[in-house]
Amino acid sequence: MRPSGRAADQMRAITIEPGFTKHAEGSVLISFGDTRVLVTASIEERVPPFLRGKGEGWVTAEYGMLPRATHTRGNREAAKGKQSGRTQEIQRLIGRSLRAVCDMKLLGERQIVLDCDVIQADGGTRTASISGAWVALRLAIDGLMKEGKLTADPLTAQVAAVSCGIYEGMPVLDLDYIEDSNAHADANFVLLSDGNIAEAQATAEGATYDEEALLRLLRLARIGCNDIFAAQLKAVDR
Amino acid sequence: MRPSGRAADQMRAITIEPGFTKHAEGSVLISFGDTRVLVTASIEERVPPFLRGKGEGWVTAEYGMLPRATHTRGNREAAKGKQSGRTQEIQRLIGRSLRAVCDMKLLGERQIVLDCDVIQADGGTRTASISGAWVALRLAIDGLMKEGKLTADPLTAQVAAVSCGIYEGMPVLDLDYIEDSNAHADANFVLLSDGNIAEAQATAEGATYDEEALLRLLRLARIGCNDIFAAQLKAVDR
Amino acid sequence: MRPSGRAADQMRAITIEPGFTKHAEGSVLISFGDTRVLVTASIEERVPPFLRGKGEGWVTAEYGMLPRATHTRGNREAAKGKQSGRTQEIQRLIGRSLRAVCDMKLLGERQIVLDCDVIQADGGTRTASISGAWVALRLAIDGLMKEGKLTADPLTAQVAAVSCGIYEGMPVLDLDYIEDSNAHADANFVLLSDGNIAEAQATAEGATYDEEALLRLLRLARIGCNDIFAAQLKAVDR
Amino acid sequence: MRPSGRAADQMRAITIEPGFTKHAEGSVLISFGDTRVLVTASIEERVPPFLRGKGEGWVTAEYGMLPRATHTRGNREAAKGKQSGRTQEIQRLIGRSLRAVCDMKLLGERQIVLDCDVIQADGGTRTASISGAWVALRLAIDGLMKEGKLTADPLTAQVAAVSCGIYEGMPVLDLDYIEDSNAHADANFVLLSDGNIAEAQATAEGATYDEEALLRLLRLARIGCNDIFAAQLKAVDR
Amino acid sequence: MRPSGRAADQMRAITIEPGFTKHAEGSVLISFGDTRVLVTASIEERVPPFLRGKGEGWVTAEYGMLPRATHTRGNREAAKGKQSGRTQEIQRLIGRSLRAVCDMKLLGERQIVLDCDVIQADGGTRTASISGAWVALRLAIDGLMKEGKLTADPLTAQVAAVSCGIYEGMPVLDLDYIEDSNAHADANFVLLSDGNIAEAQATAEGATYDEEALLRLLRLARIGCNDIFAAQLKAVDR
Amino acid sequence: MRPSGRAADQMRAITIEPGFTKHAEGSVLISFGDTRVLVTASIEERVPPFLRGKGEGWVTAEYGMLPRATHTRGNREAAKGKQSGRTQEIQRLIGRSLRAVCDMKLLGERQIVLDCDVIQADGGTRTASISGAWVALRLAIDGLMKEGKLTADPLTAQVAAVSCGIYEGMPVLDLDYIEDSNAHADANFVLLSDGNIAEAQATAEGATYDEEALLRLLRLARIGCNDIFAAQLKAVDR
Repeated sequence: MRPSGRAADQMRAITIEPGFTKHAEGSVLISFGDTRVLVTASIEERVPPFLRGKGEGWVTAEYGMLPRATHTRGNREAAKGKQSGRTQEIQRLIGRSLRAVCDMKLLGERQIVLDCDVIQADGGTRTASISGAWVALRLAIDGLMKEGKLTADPLTAQVAAVSCGIYEGMPVLDLDYIEDSNAHADANFVLLSDGNIAEAQATAEGATYDEEALLRLLRLARIGCNDIFAAQLKAVDR
Repeated sequence: MRPSGRAADQMRAITIEPGFTKHAEGSVLISFGDTRVLVTASIEERVPPFLRGKGEGWVTAEYGMLPRATHTRGNREAAKGKQSGRTQEIQRLIGRSLRAVCDMKLLGERQIVLDCDVIQADGGTRTASISGAWVALRLAIDGLMKEGKLTADPLTAQVAAVSCGIYEGMPVLDLDYIEDSNAHADANFVLLSDGNIAEAQATAEGATYDEEALLRLLRLARIGCNDIFAAQLKAVDR
Repeated sequence: MRPSGRAADQMRAITIEPGFTKHAEGSVLISFGDTRVLVTASIEERVPPFLRGKGEGWVTAEYGMLPRATHTRGNREAAKGKQSGRTQEIQRLIGRSLRAVCDMKLLGERQIVLDCDVIQADGGTRTASISGAWVALRLAIDGLMKEGKLTADPLTAQVAAVSCGIYEGMPVLDLDYIEDSNAHADANFVLLSDGNIAEAQATAEGATYDEEALLRLLRLARIGCNDIFAAQLKAVDR
Repeated sequence: MRPSGRAADQMRAITIEPGFTKHAEGSVLISFGDTRVLVTASIEERVPPFLRGKGEGWVTAEYGMLPRATHTRGNREAAKGKQSGRTQEIQRLIGRSLRAVCDMKLLGERQIVLDCDVIQADGGTRTASISGAWVALRLAIDGLMKEGKLTADPLTAQVAAVSCGIYEGMPVLDLDYIEDSNAHADANFVLLSDGNIAEAQATAEGATYDEEALLRLLRLARIGCNDIFAAQLKAVDR
Repeated sequence: MRPSGRAADQMRAITIEPGFTKHAEGSVLISFGDTRVLVTASIEERVPPFLRGKGEGWVTAEYGMLPRATHTRGNREAAKGKQSGRTQEIQRLIGRSLRAVCDMKLLGERQIVLDCDVIQADGGTRTASISGAWVALRLAIDGLMKEGKLTADPLTAQVAAVSCGIYEGMPVLDLDYIEDSNAHADANFVLLSDGNIAEAQATAEGATYDEEALLRLLRLARIGCNDIFAAQLKAVDR
Repeated sequence: MRPSGRAADQMRAITIEPGFTKHAEGSVLISFGDTRVLVTASIEERVPPFLRGKGEGWVTAEYGMLPRATHTRGNREAAKGKQSGRTQEIQRLIGRSLRAVCDMKLLGERQIVLDCDVIQADGGTRTASISGAWVALRLAIDGLMKEGKLTADPLTAQVAAVSCGIYEGMPVLDLDYIEDSNAHADANFVLLSDGNIAEAQATAEGATYDEEALLRLLRLARIGCNDIFAAQLKAVDR
């Protein structure tokens, strides 16, 4: 029995509020239950040095957590003077995930920065970030297309992510904080709407797992991502 | 004529949404027009080293701006590895302002940290932060009193802040971003509900000002703060 | 009764020693009583990136305190690896104050850096810095004019600064360290020789203050700055 | 056809040289082909703050690459003043992997630090690090047991890691640098000698992959890890 | 012929002004010609962690250069966020030099910090720092003895330092900036009043040197240090 | 009697293994007894900003110690976020020493970076680094000459370094860790094969020394460097 009473393959409520802030070219407040992340997409008409002059674009991400997004207050990374290893690992994952569905030649020589800031945390902040970032990116690219700056759509598919894990011996979908703290294995899957996988990460915590468990977690992730894909489309009116 | 069409002594719409996040002992989303700041109050049962064992509490603040709170994306301070001089100046001001209305002996040997994070910026982020921080602090202290951890109320007054400036030669209240960028003098006043002043800062930008102008700006600030005091009381149900 | 025996509106002895060091285009050792600050003005034939190609100049300041300028030794900021919030706030204030009396178009595309290093501290280091910085800047600009690099004088007025505060209930001028540590309100005013105000900052410490007190502090500041203006002129032989 | 002429399921030559340095409680130079990593295990009779007084031990890892371990010289992280996100991600992975086979209660209140320094890089530095770290840890724990500081063996299994990827459309084992730079998917598996999985990470690079591909990569990893397990045992004389 | 017209074995004018600042337990402004360094000695009744409880004291030094001590303005190390290798090398040398004449058991469990801040630089700042630091240390220890905190004098000798070098093929004493910039070898000697050597450092710049040159430089240094020893004694009234 | 049983003028065994790693243009593993340092020479076809366009080259060095090169584990400098003063002092010495034998005009507008990483430490790591760096530099330059990028050899001599010290009252050559920790004076000499001196540094530790002792240490260093010069030539097949 899950603490929340959810079925093993049941997502928390997904809400996606597009246009949450006004300055960004794309912005969204995404919630997976009590986890809430503000994602903005910022278009910059320049690319990182290693891409200059190649006619290709870039998509990158930054991630942060407000100090009191969590149960007890964490130190502010800006005050500590550095980003933790966890923060850097997450923002690298978000960037890779979104680049997996973006044709950089079609995007042209510009960069889109996805800022994912966790307003409230209850497990799954990185997967909510990825899922919300696709919406923000979609909105930003729609804007470029409306302005005529892009003629072909660089987005090749939807991408979404969800966490799964083995809680009290049972594979479950979309861990909340209580489950996450007690899970024996913790996995994050980044899946595409075309059925492919962009990233699979499954980590033993306390107890290791076998191949069958890995496959069951992946199947739960498909169920969850299908829900997220639907919510994404609704948010962008498609 | 102000760009927004407001009268010289007219505040933007003030909204205060208490309980915006669930983990913090006090939390609020405050808006002055399009400027939106999330403030949380976190209670810690310890004090900074210089106060240990003295039986007194402490109130401090941190301030941050999400990278795309602004018209063009700013660098993330956590990624740059340091807080700007502006950020530090603002968080010192917020901390001082709230300490001006808190009796540290009554608070007892505990610390309350006020995190002010700007979700969207349109001028006046430091004054919205101070005004919202009072509400978050009030909520956190109400919680301590309900739990019986405090018997007397350490808050001695309300505190609010507003910016004023000389725009196109005319003293005006509550500058928005367009006015702020073009003002010839820029002042921030932190006022108490008992009529006193906690902080007055008036800076020439382009043109210096005289004593009479300083007094007119202070009077505008009183008008604005009275509106904010009323909105604060309503938000905390008093 | 003030600890020093001074009258409420009496400055400490002001001494200004121009040419204290030989390499800088302008240099001065300024003392307000036991507070001694070395200020140098360095001319650089380039401007910060945001001004390049605009035909305008820039004036900026840096501030530091020698580790044993104070009663007990403080940590060296270079060894700690960062400047404190207080240091950054002060150097921003010094820069703004001097820019208030400099016509940047007349200065042309060059930068003048004012380094204010406190040799000995006894209250009022930021105000002594500003007052000395005007002299160093005046000397540097005189040099540019003598060399024919400037045809019109970019300095539009004198600028000076002084602290005032409420000590034992009485508004007093030019706080020394003992008064500063015990004042109930602490104000810094940056005034121009044309009668205008460049900056007013009045902060409650322990007790808040009212509008009348603010005005009395401002009037004390005028008295003090008039003394400083005279000392500045004498130092630069005008 | 692989650039090295290896079969799809063929590891590079594995060599493990125990006792490569003399000061560390365990040390090993491990090679996967031209990739060479020096791993040392250092025993410290204290634990991190969060574990003090709990009677449990800790195993952690740090990772570094000598500046000219690579084809072109990289910047020295100590000189840049921070570890890259990649470095931090890898050292977190190494630490987790070794903790998966260590019973912390049996280890007792002490810490073992695994330093993995890449002398020469040709793909697979993180997996060689994990595989070598097990040997260094085994040697260090053998020492503790010989000294009578441990009565029961805290190591519950062997752990090894290998990379796999899809190169020119074909799943292959143990990517070298040329393959790694051109692979369409890049996976790292951390496997236990009892058949379980400690960590699976599979990342799309350029092209995404499907479930079947993930399974084939996992099976290749089993083949490779079996070779590594044998080499580990031989190195520690079991 | 030296640019200054000095003889090969002639020091610049040495002036030592004790008591230059009032807060430090010992303070001095020392000049070797146009090189001027302010040195303060601060007594702290605690020692670094590695000495706690051993009944021994410690003497350490920090060194800094004001940004415009030099011909062209240098960056402020506090603003850059780190001390240069040169700064660290110099402050380590100063600390070692003074420790060479201090009996740490007689000093007792306290630390004396010598802050050497260069007000104006014209070559030889490190040697002026060492020579001045002995005076500041002597004054601070005299104070401890007067207060009865020390019964025996921990200072075992005087220490002084001077630079020598090979300029235009000729060994010369006490290089000024022009000579230093053009010297083919640059040496610093730290000598004791008892005839012994605390530190000898001779570095080739452009051309290497032989043993005979090393000895001639050392003999010049003796001549210079004898002058400095005399000036030190005069400054401390012995 | 030395702990190792060596004669006063006897070096430890010197071994030099050229080509220890494959990517660098020059690489060597050098041992002085149990002290082992990996040195790589990396050629970069650009120079530091202060040399651009002058037609001259540059040689520089970086130094690091693996965390467990020493008896007890030291902190990793990359993790601490800064290089110690000792590290910076050593790498500056290595760079200067190698520049003393390289004609920068003949090298042409390119930079050679010498990375010296201590694998195992037993005293004398900086002198082993310098001695090994000459071999790595020689190999790298030989490569440039073979490729026809250089027509004349920029290396003007061999350079080697060794430490000497006064141990139990006796001047001895090539201190190992036990001797180094207990020596009363510690000297490092950087000598050229043409008989000249590039750098002499002799530091009192506990007891100061006299001119005669300095000369005896220098003569021991000549004996040691002659051994190293022979080993260098053998390693590079000359």
